[in-house]
Amino acid sequence: MLGLVKRPTISDVAQRAGVSISAASFALNGRPGVSDRTRQRVLAIADEIGWHRNSAARVLSGGTTNVIGMAFPRPATTLGAEPFFMELVSGIESVLAGPGYALMMQVVADVDAELKVYRSWWGEHRVDGIVVVDLRGDDPRVGLLEELALPAVVVGGPAEVGSLPHVWADDAAAAVETVGYLAALGHRRIARVAGLPDLLHTRRRDEAFREAGGTYGLDFDIVHTDYTGLEGAQATRRLLSSRERPTAVLYDNSIMAVAGMSVADEMRLSVPADLSIVAWDDSQLCQVIRPAITALARDVTAYGARVARLLLDVVTRADGERSVEVPAPRLVPRSSTAPPR
Amino acid sequence: MLGLVKRPTISDVAQRAGVSISAASFALNGRPGVSDRTRQRVLAIADEIGWHRNSAARVLSGGTTNVIGMAFPRPATTLGAEPFFMELVSGIESVLAGPGYALMMQVVADVDAELKVYRSWWGEHRVDGIVVVDLRGDDPRVGLLEELALPAVVVGGPAEVGSLPHVWADDAAAAVETVGYLAALGHRRIARVAGLPDLLHTRRRDEAFREAGGTYGLDFDIVHTDYTGLEGAQATRRLLSSRERPTAVLYDNSIMAVAGMSVADEMRLSVPADLSIVAWDDSQLCQVIRPAITALARDVTAYGARVARLLLDVVTRADGERSVEVPAPRLVPRSSTAPPR
Repeated sequence: MLGLVKRPTISDVAQRAGVSISAASFALNGRPGVSDRTRQRVLAIADEIGWHRNSAARVLSGGTTNVIGMAFPRPATTLGAEPFFMELVSGIESVLAGPGYALMMQVVADVDAELKVYRSWWGEHRVDGIVVVDLRGDDPRVGLLEELALPAVVVGGPAEVGSLPHVWADDAAAAVETVGYLAALGHRRIARVAGLPDLLHTRRRDEAFREAGGTYGLDFDIVHTDYTGLEGAQATRRLLSSRERPTAVLYDNSIMAVAGMSVADEMRLSVPADLSIVAWDDSQLCQVIRPAITALARDVTAYGARVARLLLDVVTRADGERSVEVPAPRLVPRSSTAPPR
Repeated sequence: MLGLVKRPTISDVAQRAGVSISAASFALNGRPGVSDRTRQRVLAIADEIGWHRNSAARVLSGGTTNVIGMAFPRPATTLGAEPFFMELVSGIESVLAGPGYALMMQVVADVDAELKVYRSWWGEHRVDGIVVVDLRGDDPRVGLLEELALPAVVVGGPAEVGSLPHVWADDAAAAVETVGYLAALGHRRIARVAGLPDLLHTRRRDEAFREAGGTYGLDFDIVHTDYTGLEGAQATRRLLSSRERPTAVLYDNSIMAVAGMSVADEMRLSVPADLSIVAWDDSQLCQVIRPAITALARDVTAYGARVARLLLDVVTRADGERSVEVPAPRLVPRSSTAPPR
């Protein structure tokens, strides 16, 4: 069934509806000049014959692109091992689909590459707005987006986001809750195997963890990694080889928590009797592995949906909140945590 | 640093270069009418002041959108647990970035929604080409893409792709290799916990598995799932509760293999002594868990890159191969497989 199908034009719609091209245009563009009955007929026919507005024509006539852009400044291996991003994207798209927005995604090598992508999306009128992830300290993307006045929503905050709208969760509260729980179980030496140190959410968790450790009078240690299982295993080996090894370790993702569990096994330490393990965020993996892993859980899809709703608000210039807080991650205790031996 | 920055226009470029607007246009569009020296100067200035061609103007003047579209007809939970898609996307983007193509991705509820997305991308001139994943039997997307004459490359094949270009791997060979290996270890009863039964690659693996089982004279069983850890665990429980339980199970992804390992543990069966486990595809998870999981490994990023190169060929109408085979997955034996007790 090969062959070129002609895209229906506005004059096809007009002809079928028995009206002039300008009347059809008024009807399709929601402008006055035609009766309601004519408008209904024209819209029905447009739908029936599959007429779509040419997106390029709409942009040139001063309209919107109906595209939201999102860049991922992480290597593919990290993205593949991290359910977070696909769940976030899915939540974003669940909202964008309604008003007919598409999501343009680009994996970039680093923040410099991302700045270049933003400039070209802006210069080429490719997107109406941008979702920013993996916020850094003194993030150059914030300044650029403010300068270009390109609508954007940051996944993160509320600090260091400049004037950009943002959707954030209280990670510090979740860190404090977890440390308090481990202290209550009787742990006195705990550690955190964290993600990339230049990410702002890593720093915020580090600080909250350190502070809570101080509050509960615990010894604590932090090791930074690139989120891969390999570095998670190395960090765990180092921690468990120290003279005063921790009895509980909190990991910044599930794959590192599993790698840590394997290292404990390899060093003949039992989970949770000799070592308690907690993962941040929760995932299918934490639930299906044995022992099941205690985790900090949150509804990432709902988070993404909230981000998209805020961005659509910003794009359409509606008034409204510009700093939105979503629920903090909550601790889900499973079999990987227990009082220390 | 708030404020509206003006996008540089072609007349800004012309003014800075000291040439007429039409000369600047000739130079920027690679058309004759200006000297090489002028062209070089104009291009340098355009680059310096950050001039970008308005993508909408380019489309309306009969040019390309420089956008490739890709829809994912899977629920977010599956996508999040599956490293395959992010790795594939990353490989695709590594190639698209060079010639300045962007990738437009959309998560869709089902194939019907995907058909609608294709029609609207086509109708609105949003994309130059499409990457098709998760091919099904009698896939309606093949017919639609042929009808619309929209350039597309299928990830899969070589059967049931109609006239569409495609990039495929010999999954059947990998299935035969794996069954042969398990037979050589001495297994006589094996099972396969497969993915969605309506996907063509699931069917092809099922057939190859059944055939190889016959060749080696093995008892075999196949259970279909939705790729989640939950269904992987249920399938394993059912298989291991049968009178004649299998001594080796091959899973269609890593998360189900881990879930299967947990069910074995819960039923006091030891891996690999009582039960051998194989995962298809390999992942970080298979490598970091203990016992490490024997897996069928392939270079998914390279696969994606090959898909993108073929699609760019198709979009630019270059002649060339239209059925490209990439290397079959290879078996990587680890600690989860052994002779049965």
